[in-house]
Amino acid sequence: MGVRFGLLGAGRIGKVHARAIAANPDATLVAVADPLDQAAREISGRYGCDIRTIDAIEAAADIDAVVICTPTDTHADLIERFARGGKAIFCEKPIDLDVPRVEACLKVVAAEKATLMVGFNRRFDPHFMAVRRAIDDGAIGKVEMVNIISRDPGPPPAEYITRSGGIFRDMTIHDFDMARFLLGEEPVRVAASASVLVDPQIGALGDYDSISVILTTASGRQCVISNSRRATYGYDQRIEVHGSSGMVAAENQRPVSIEVANAKGYTRPPLHDFFMTRYLDAYAHEIAVFIATVKTGGPASPSGADGLAALRLADAALKAAASGMTVDV
Amino acid sequence: MGVRFGLLGAGRIGKVHARAIAANPDATLVAVADPLDQAAREISGRYGCDIRTIDAIEAAADIDAVVICTPTDTHADLIERFARGGKAIFCEKPIDLDVPRVEACLKVVAAEKATLMVGFNRRFDPHFMAVRRAIDDGAIGKVEMVNIISRDPGPPPAEYITRSGGIFRDMTIHDFDMARFLLGEEPVRVAASASVLVDPQIGALGDYDSISVILTTASGRQCVISNSRRATYGYDQRIEVHGSSGMVAAENQRPVSIEVANAKGYTRPPLHDFFMTRYLDAYAHEIAVFIATVKTGGPASPSGADGLAALRLADAALKAAASGMTVDV
Amino acid sequence: MGVRFGLLGAGRIGKVHARAIAANPDATLVAVADPLDQAAREISGRYGCDIRTIDAIEAAADIDAVVICTPTDTHADLIERFARGGKAIFCEKPIDLDVPRVEACLKVVAAEKATLMVGFNRRFDPHFMAVRRAIDDGAIGKVEMVNIISRDPGPPPAEYITRSGGIFRDMTIHDFDMARFLLGEEPVRVAASASVLVDPQIGALGDYDSISVILTTASGRQCVISNSRRATYGYDQRIEVHGSSGMVAAENQRPVSIEVANAKGYTRPPLHDFFMTRYLDAYAHEIAVFIATVKTGGPASPSGADGLAALRLADAALKAAASGMTVDV
Amino acid sequence: MGVRFGLLGAGRIGKVHARAIAANPDATLVAVADPLDQAAREISGRYGCDIRTIDAIEAAADIDAVVICTPTDTHADLIERFARGGKAIFCEKPIDLDVPRVEACLKVVAAEKATLMVGFNRRFDPHFMAVRRAIDDGAIGKVEMVNIISRDPGPPPAEYITRSGGIFRDMTIHDFDMARFLLGEEPVRVAASASVLVDPQIGALGDYDSISVILTTASGRQCVISNSRRATYGYDQRIEVHGSSGMVAAENQRPVSIEVANAKGYTRPPLHDFFMTRYLDAYAHEIAVFIATVKTGGPASPSGADGLAALRLADAALKAAASGMTVDV
Repeated sequence: MGVRFGLLGAGRIGKVHARAIAANPDATLVAVADPLDQAAREISGRYGCDIRTIDAIEAAADIDAVVICTPTDTHADLIERFARGGKAIFCEKPIDLDVPRVEACLKVVAAEKATLMVGFNRRFDPHFMAVRRAIDDGAIGKVEMVNIISRDPGPPPAEYITRSGGIFRDMTIHDFDMARFLLGEEPVRVAASASVLVDPQIGALGDYDSISVILTTASGRQCVISNSRRATYGYDQRIEVHGSSGMVAAENQRPVSIEVANAKGYTRPPLHDFFMTRYLDAYAHEIAVFIATVKTGGPASPSGADGLAALRLADAALKAAASGMTVDV
Repeated sequence: MGVRFGLLGAGRIGKVHARAIAANPDATLVAVADPLDQAAREISGRYGCDIRTIDAIEAAADIDAVVICTPTDTHADLIERFARGGKAIFCEKPIDLDVPRVEACLKVVAAEKATLMVGFNRRFDPHFMAVRRAIDDGAIGKVEMVNIISRDPGPPPAEYITRSGGIFRDMTIHDFDMARFLLGEEPVRVAASASVLVDPQIGALGDYDSISVILTTASGRQCVISNSRRATYGYDQRIEVHGSSGMVAAENQRPVSIEVANAKGYTRPPLHDFFMTRYLDAYAHEIAVFIATVKTGGPASPSGADGLAALRLADAALKAAASGMTVDV
Repeated sequence: MGVRFGLLGAGRIGKVHARAIAANPDATLVAVADPLDQAAREISGRYGCDIRTIDAIEAAADIDAVVICTPTDTHADLIERFARGGKAIFCEKPIDLDVPRVEACLKVVAAEKATLMVGFNRRFDPHFMAVRRAIDDGAIGKVEMVNIISRDPGPPPAEYITRSGGIFRDMTIHDFDMARFLLGEEPVRVAASASVLVDPQIGALGDYDSISVILTTASGRQCVISNSRRATYGYDQRIEVHGSSGMVAAENQRPVSIEVANAKGYTRPPLHDFFMTRYLDAYAHEIAVFIATVKTGGPASPSGADGLAALRLADAALKAAASGMTVDV
Repeated sequence: MGVRFGLLGAGRIGKVHARAIAANPDATLVAVADPLDQAAREISGRYGCDIRTIDAIEAAADIDAVVICTPTDTHADLIERFARGGKAIFCEKPIDLDVPRVEACLKVVAAEKATLMVGFNRRFDPHFMAVRRAIDDGAIGKVEMVNIISRDPGPPPAEYITRSGGIFRDMTIHDFDMARFLLGEEPVRVAASASVLVDPQIGALGDYDSISVILTTASGRQCVISNSRRATYGYDQRIEVHGSSGMVAAENQRPVSIEVANAKGYTRPPLHDFFMTRYLDAYAHEIAVFIATVKTGGPASPSGADGLAALRLADAALKAAASGMTVDV
């Protein structure tokens, strides 16, 4: 039977988690809740789980843990509610777009001694995990400089941009978390540049689509992040970490690795074109780790504090880009 | 509900197929049969299917298709039996190690108009499929020369060697099938060299562990196959196809694609160390294609005739290696 | 006979240029000058040229052009002197470490209508040239973001650091020039972070060994530069340029490209371990372009103005790193 | 002054050697001989050497060594003549197309105790040398299997084919030498397949353009060679060697190593399109080794015996392809 799950939100990312739960031998998907009846029915039909309201899931004795995949502005409320209700909580990032609201939420989580894991899926990608493992194994000595390149195949729709909190809080936040995951020290200063190069409509909405960030830690370790909402060749996700005795890097992933050669040269196919196929294994492993955390009662990682720290870096980067000043965190 | 399956044989490869069937939304695993009670129970427990005898599966009205994963020397008998019983049949390669026995079996299949698909899993590997698609799309012009390198991480146990029919019928047979899949013409001549370089015990059993083969078609297309029972760096599976206007190649696969650089150089991890992880996607896709074949009633591919053709090439290669003559097929 | 050269300075870089001149069919190395007799004699003996004083070279009727490879603090004086003397001038970077001194020098060059080419050798590397050509050919559309990684195998001696003008003026200046070469627009803002991670002695001398820079142009194009005085795996020199319709990147270079695979994985040798072997072709091509410029009388590129522009970016980056403010150029 | 050279033959390959001699500080190019006056004058003008007749070079007291780059059918006569004349000899491959003629020639060389080095340039390619060094250093254990792929960008003109001795003696002979260089044991059996796939005119001349060969040594080591007169993507030259504890491979070489990525994928430029640019370093190193051999008086390698051994393999492969029999050497 294993950990018994309630899924809140049956949208795109909800389906990803439903599949991961259903395929995991240590978990059962008991119920799904979504105001859109059809979305809930699709998951219910596929995995044989109940359709229930959020209230019913909150009250359910046969549910141990919830996965929150609802819209961002409901996350903090739901976390507080289920923390108080005694369920273990996995919440998609971000907890909230507002730092004080996140802080308040985490106080409730702490007071209730609730288990809260935040969905920074990239920490569970097998390639990035291998990078971190190489660091932990001493393969590169002391970490000094990190380079992260994340580029999306194309910009999201305007409606998404409006509710996203802006590129730093929506997209770069994954890289801020990855920087913290790899640097081995907290960034204390942020410099940034932000432009609109891809889509003027993004600029019209007050957001950026192309950004560069430098993070610096207290001892002088540096992390450079480069983001764009455009990558014609697929979903570009690269990390390299330089240490005192070497370097470790994760390469990009493509669905098929063939090469065609002719008079024009040697051509390999584009990368994955979608974050869900790129991070399929990461999502499955992320849920597996959450399940293990719930079963053992150990501390969740990444935690609410990790979510908060990444959000603070995003806010600092936005301020740095706007002000032309390096911002202390 | 979809296609209802009986699984014959609950060993290593049986488990792979059980998982693929269970995960496929168009199929149901109804029953498993295995003389080893524990093996059957493991699959039954994991996927919630019945444990039945082969006789019961043959007689079952609630089973549409069988997957034969039993020892090689039972394949032909079981194929005939289930062909007569009106079930669709997926059979692991080889049908038999003896050409006349295969021919007799295929006559029964033909007479019964039974659906028989043979388990040449590599045809369903996404990378090799992409190679074939590139050829079909005209990316390299007319096929001229094919190079296939297949090297196992290590030799199998002596007991396996004894029952395997020898390296050509057991290991190279996959490459013979791949050559036929890619050459676009039937090989008509076979030259070969065979040695014992890896394990003297293999030689003591009358088999080889290192072989090279040249296949030639009627119009002069050539395929070179290189096999070894040893590859310290993992499961080495490469294909390249040269045509009149270009080349297409499939690269090796590794579980994690990171790179560590230091004073000794740049190091990437070894390849997959096992054919089951290397071909995980291929096995799933293979069963999906079989299911689609059963549902549509279309002709199975690879067919029994494909199994027979590959076996004939294996026999010819063995004869060529032993005699020092190029053998016509 | 071609262009007749006088070489000023017979040190490490002087030898590189002597060889390039001697091997070029359109040039003759007539004389070398160096206060160190042995250094001059080595070049004289190898290439059969005279040893003369700088005064004699200045006065010589049989010399058309000079290559200035003397210590940095003599560059501006020598440029002015030979500009007035009517010789074409190739000068190693930098013209001077002080912007007003460079400006004064360039006024003399302009007044004398002298030919002055500055030694930014990387513009002549065949790989980086191919990157630029791909941009010019429209292969990636409009340039948007540039990533430059330059890492030295190890830190220079303290004595060198002292006279170098600091990492931004000594090392990053090549990357500033490359950024200008590739961005297609002048940077107008500079953000930077600078640390001492490699060698505390460098910090004791008031310099840095690890830096990150963000350049932004008026239209928002961005360039990220990452520099370190340490790279255990060799001389790391990478460039990638992202445009509106694609990306072009230059890969690292290694002296031998083999790969060894075993149970530990796949290992390729380290990169070139020295800038002179890495950029051997670039140095030869650079001199060839200078010779062509002298023969045709066309404008030199990179020019004195390019040297000045890169120096201004270096000064701005230093100020940005020290002040924590984004600096306008 | 170093070794004083006479160059016999001022054609394409003669120019390559002239440049290598001229650039080598331990050698002087004293004279060139060629019946075509213009060819000789081109080299004489470029490197400042005399133009002399072959007779004059034979009689010259100021010449220590000759490089024979004349047509193939003159090689054996010239070797004998200069062996008797006491000059050290570097001869382009092959010594002759006829085994008995080569044997007779080598008897003269032995009787005269002459220094004779044969121009198998690939042994001096830095990448293939590194492969051999890795083997010698024990990086892959005991050699077991070698794979060689050599494909020319396009077929030579018919006139060349006519005088070439056929693909095995002209093209594959380099791979036979490389096989001997790497296998660590002499091949004793040859199997082969040969076709006309590229150019029917080659078939009309009685030659082949596409061949596959298997060499086997006494202990069972195997080498597979794949040749084609067509490779749309450039000059394809790959070697991989498998041993008891690992594998070492040399990658293909391209003049520029950039990569362009867009919606169609990631594209790297074609390989070198000509053997002279591909093997530029090899030719220079080859002459340097010959010079060192002449100066030290050590045994030449590759020797006349190496030339003969490769020719015997070529003859055996031709016989194997024509007869359909494995041929013992």
